[in-house]
Amino acid sequence: MADPVRVAVLGVSGYAGGELVRLLWDHPEVELTFVGGKDSAGSTLGEVHPHLSELGQIRILPIDDLGLISESAEVAFLALPNGSSSGLAPGLLDAGSKVIDLAGDFRLAATDYPTWYGFDHPAPGWLDEAAYGLPELFTERIADARLVANPGCYPTPAILGLAPLLAAGLIEPGPIRVDGKTGITGAGRAASGIGSFAATEESIRPYRAPGHQHTPEMERGIRLASGKDIDVLFVPHLVPAVRGVLVSCYAVAAQGATSSAVTECLSATYDGEPFVRVLPAGSMVDSKRTRGSNMVELQAFVDDRSGTAVVVGAVDNLIKGAAGQAIQNLNLLIGADQTTALPRLAMYP
Amino acid sequence: MADPVRVAVLGVSGYAGGELVRLLWDHPEVELTFVGGKDSAGSTLGEVHPHLSELGQIRILPIDDLGLISESAEVAFLALPNGSSSGLAPGLLDAGSKVIDLAGDFRLAATDYPTWYGFDHPAPGWLDEAAYGLPELFTERIADARLVANPGCYPTPAILGLAPLLAAGLIEPGPIRVDGKTGITGAGRAASGIGSFAATEESIRPYRAPGHQHTPEMERGIRLASGKDIDVLFVPHLVPAVRGVLVSCYAVAAQGATSSAVTECLSATYDGEPFVRVLPAGSMVDSKRTRGSNMVELQAFVDDRSGTAVVVGAVDNLIKGAAGQAIQNLNLLIGADQTTALPRLAMYP
Amino acid sequence: MADPVRVAVLGVSGYAGGELVRLLWDHPEVELTFVGGKDSAGSTLGEVHPHLSELGQIRILPIDDLGLISESAEVAFLALPNGSSSGLAPGLLDAGSKVIDLAGDFRLAATDYPTWYGFDHPAPGWLDEAAYGLPELFTERIADARLVANPGCYPTPAILGLAPLLAAGLIEPGPIRVDGKTGITGAGRAASGIGSFAATEESIRPYRAPGHQHTPEMERGIRLASGKDIDVLFVPHLVPAVRGVLVSCYAVAAQGATSSAVTECLSATYDGEPFVRVLPAGSMVDSKRTRGSNMVELQAFVDDRSGTAVVVGAVDNLIKGAAGQAIQNLNLLIGADQTTALPRLAMYP
Amino acid sequence: MADPVRVAVLGVSGYAGGELVRLLWDHPEVELTFVGGKDSAGSTLGEVHPHLSELGQIRILPIDDLGLISESAEVAFLALPNGSSSGLAPGLLDAGSKVIDLAGDFRLAATDYPTWYGFDHPAPGWLDEAAYGLPELFTERIADARLVANPGCYPTPAILGLAPLLAAGLIEPGPIRVDGKTGITGAGRAASGIGSFAATEESIRPYRAPGHQHTPEMERGIRLASGKDIDVLFVPHLVPAVRGVLVSCYAVAAQGATSSAVTECLSATYDGEPFVRVLPAGSMVDSKRTRGSNMVELQAFVDDRSGTAVVVGAVDNLIKGAAGQAIQNLNLLIGADQTTALPRLAMYP
Repeated sequence: MADPVRVAVLGVSGYAGGELVRLLWDHPEVELTFVGGKDSAGSTLGEVHPHLSELGQIRILPIDDLGLISESAEVAFLALPNGSSSGLAPGLLDAGSKVIDLAGDFRLAATDYPTWYGFDHPAPGWLDEAAYGLPELFTERIADARLVANPGCYPTPAILGLAPLLAAGLIEPGPIRVDGKTGITGAGRAASGIGSFAATEESIRPYRAPGHQHTPEMERGIRLASGKDIDVLFVPHLVPAVRGVLVSCYAVAAQGATSSAVTECLSATYDGEPFVRVLPAGSMVDSKRTRGSNMVELQAFVDDRSGTAVVVGAVDNLIKGAAGQAIQNLNLLIGADQTTALPRLAMYP
Repeated sequence: MADPVRVAVLGVSGYAGGELVRLLWDHPEVELTFVGGKDSAGSTLGEVHPHLSELGQIRILPIDDLGLISESAEVAFLALPNGSSSGLAPGLLDAGSKVIDLAGDFRLAATDYPTWYGFDHPAPGWLDEAAYGLPELFTERIADARLVANPGCYPTPAILGLAPLLAAGLIEPGPIRVDGKTGITGAGRAASGIGSFAATEESIRPYRAPGHQHTPEMERGIRLASGKDIDVLFVPHLVPAVRGVLVSCYAVAAQGATSSAVTECLSATYDGEPFVRVLPAGSMVDSKRTRGSNMVELQAFVDDRSGTAVVVGAVDNLIKGAAGQAIQNLNLLIGADQTTALPRLAMYP
Repeated sequence: MADPVRVAVLGVSGYAGGELVRLLWDHPEVELTFVGGKDSAGSTLGEVHPHLSELGQIRILPIDDLGLISESAEVAFLALPNGSSSGLAPGLLDAGSKVIDLAGDFRLAATDYPTWYGFDHPAPGWLDEAAYGLPELFTERIADARLVANPGCYPTPAILGLAPLLAAGLIEPGPIRVDGKTGITGAGRAASGIGSFAATEESIRPYRAPGHQHTPEMERGIRLASGKDIDVLFVPHLVPAVRGVLVSCYAVAAQGATSSAVTECLSATYDGEPFVRVLPAGSMVDSKRTRGSNMVELQAFVDDRSGTAVVVGAVDNLIKGAAGQAIQNLNLLIGADQTTALPRLAMYP
Repeated sequence: MADPVRVAVLGVSGYAGGELVRLLWDHPEVELTFVGGKDSAGSTLGEVHPHLSELGQIRILPIDDLGLISESAEVAFLALPNGSSSGLAPGLLDAGSKVIDLAGDFRLAATDYPTWYGFDHPAPGWLDEAAYGLPELFTERIADARLVANPGCYPTPAILGLAPLLAAGLIEPGPIRVDGKTGITGAGRAASGIGSFAATEESIRPYRAPGHQHTPEMERGIRLASGKDIDVLFVPHLVPAVRGVLVSCYAVAAQGATSSAVTECLSATYDGEPFVRVLPAGSMVDSKRTRGSNMVELQAFVDDRSGTAVVVGAVDNLIKGAAGQAIQNLNLLIGADQTTALPRLAMYP
């Protein structure tokens, strides 16, 4: 067997960072050679993630010496807050590492950042070079990339579900309303203030609508995949769960589109894809059946009364919606089978 | 003080029945004189609802002797499964009792029943006479009624939120997509098979779409209140909660409609209503703030990018969405203050 | 009707403070004349507790002018963190107000405070004067008191369950092991760091054992009620719930003690008490049947194989374990019926 | 590599059956050659366990042809209800298969079955031959066995925690009180009637005490491992979780026993064991840190005031408490590394 690929995880103290370490640990073609963090530097992995304490002696290093990191690792995962990775990635890339960024820093056009993320992008030159890391739709682009922008949790099922139907002309390219539901870990860092158990149990509530930063990401991902320009309205909701993201997308059905046509379109598109489960017409998505796995579940139907095509999709936001998809992208980058180290079977119940 | 009004609760063994008894117990102008059930007849209240065991000696009676019930009670609450109350209500009405029906049996037109409920309506003559029991919109009609059709949990916030905007011309009378989220007690009887803790925790999933029976109820309630004919697509979802229903409604915004215009329209409509809380623009509804109370929370905004007007509303499905609203209707019927025996302050957290 | 009693709630921003306001709002013999807080001073009630926004215009005042508070209120509830009320209470008492303290500041002997609470008591002279506010056991003492030490959530069911059995000689006065389980709101302020939804869902864990400050409170309360000196080991556990405290107490059964004897002893002790439900032998306590009410549920049995008498008790920690019991004490203080404004029927499910 | 070992899973439709299939799927030295069920026979795996639908074409076979099963599989896992496997196992053993039984049918002495399980054991001759499958304590016995009695979920952490302390004389061989807490999947089949989401959320309650069948299993396992005869009182409680079992065990501390002595005893006993994590004194067990893994977490301390030694232990009841431990036993049986196919890192959060 060839030498293992040396990889770094920067920003290890978050949930996605913890999942990256957990999943990479069993990856037979990878060696985790650098684990870095900002505030967590100096601690061991076991102190920061007690459930990983069997790996406890691994020390978390600072992430300011990019040369050292690039020397240690051929590929670096950046699991840092939005706005941080765009500062780090160019240096790592220049020093020769490939980069898989789990933040939103390389997913949009430069002009979107002030509006949706509140900062001016510091390295706009890299935006065009970044591959949008949705492996089912952009396999080759990813395999050749030096920089992969790993998609957001909500856009993953939304784009996978909508793009094929737009491309096939089964839905009209008008406004699409996307209603998202997420467990607390999918609500992002802004949720930390509102994520207490006392406030979250028995609470159903929208948040950050209509300005959520996944809105333009859905629009751009759909355009890249289908060639269609559409406007998305995205209204995310927090529900009392830890993991799991489900989107229900409402589009105008094209003349003559039927429930079987939209279902068959998705089935045909993803035939053979190891991580996409298209449900037969009439079956309902359940986010729980994806939990702990890298699967996405998709369902589509047409409502004739209202002329609506509905697409429902769900993922485990920390796996297919973050760390798992990042490893799937790594597998493409290094020429491994894309399922390596990625569970297809959910932990249920 | 006048003699208390004698009331009956039929179908006491369900959740709505239990809440009716709990809330009526403290109603100063009412005496609960008859408690009836089908399978639960013969048991005591405390056996069927252990949390009510302080009322434990009350015996549940069979509900087949309509004459006896009418003799015992001036008003009867029917908290029976869909399809049962339409068989019982006419007999009670003929014998002189007023009826408040918590099922769907008197909410639609006769022609809707085969399609949406799967049965032919046995007493279509009463459908026109039934008042649709949304007190904020149909106060006088209810006060004069002999038969009140208590609204469904989802239609309550949807109609309260959408009808004023349609009437004011702030949203277009085209198709409206309503995305519902509910705790397990709001998913109705069909949820019982899927309502185990193991299957529900960490699960987000749509159900019974697009054929949910609350679809035509929303359409009809909106038409009654606004005069506008619209098509609704309703996609309900189950989330891991016990109580709480939240609807997010997506409509086409009228030319020039703004977030402040839609907010002000709702505020003006419900000014002085004790049970409606319209949030200022930018604030987000939280179903948890209605739990245990008879409140509805409403929020509206306009998204210019997609031309959408969004209305979000939430209730405690067992109170404002069932038993509490039924008692509010009773208060109108008997001339009591409509807030009598109904909590306005939620139990939080 | 007589003039309402004017009451103050100090420390209104916490959960117990919110519940005090909610419950007092419907108290027919009380007027809430002063609402105070430390950091929350200047805000309105609706800002601090959005579920109480119907009372939103009430402004929270600072709590440093004790003269003003005493002038405003005949009785002051202190819902402040442990260690704060012992500084405030003497001034209020000297100025003529009665005080009901929900913290632990007046529940123990002076010598216990350094060990169990980590501070030297600033007003030891008041400790003997304080009545321990367990109404079922110390009715008259409370009715005559100027200062009431409202019990902790865990000690309430533990003392109510154990003291009668010790007094009756049905359990031996040796060490008693108390295993506590609580929802997150009962874990106290120390839980705030560990109370995120992500960390709490699917987590069962002990905390602060064996040094939890409710240990000496149980010992002292049992001694006051039964005359017996016993040692308690208390191991509290956090489980994924918001409300609800359940204690399982393991004591050495006295020779000849049986399940019916211990059950009958509890039944006889609490016969006629409105807020105590003693379950028949063989029935199991469920914390959920007390939620939203001021009830305590108790169960006792003897295991012959191991010579153990087991007592299980549960309360809603924010009501019978805090705000509700405080109002029950208020009712005794002001000569009202002790059930005034206190729900006996739980909100279920 | 040698030919894979052919294994059967009988009783695949339950939770443990589903977990067996999920975990065995990735076992490199095993081939799943027979999947059987009673009522589920004729369905596919994907119909019974939708989260396993990627394995969907596997057909579930009836389990009445023992010859066929033995021909197909060298080792059979029995994940059947208590009382069923004792009827099947002898036939399979006679036909030459080895058997790992996940039910309680081979864990006790014949005389215990009428009392604790309510049936007369049909094959008492096999009881002595069965190895009690706690790999950390009975490695060699298991490796040589033809029949392994896989332990119950509660006894696993209780025996692992208590037996070494008894053997070392750090706790007295008197009565031990074990307070158990479990998520709904650990409460066994009897929980199905009480396991609705509406009844379980916000509910903490004991069940089946003091007659739970894990009581004599703890006693026997402790005796086998330590040589000490003790009486156990076991009081299990249901809390609102899906997975996770935690036991808090209260024993009389031996003269001179200290928190460091009991901690060191456990650390020394399990030094090098891949699936046991002994926490340093002062740290607290959290069941969530074991979820999805085959780990057990243990903690011990001594409370001098009450003379009590406390041992706390937790497992994921479906993995180390059922399917995972069964595979660990399989690994011993077939000479594989005992960690093969078993996660050590929990899925968190």
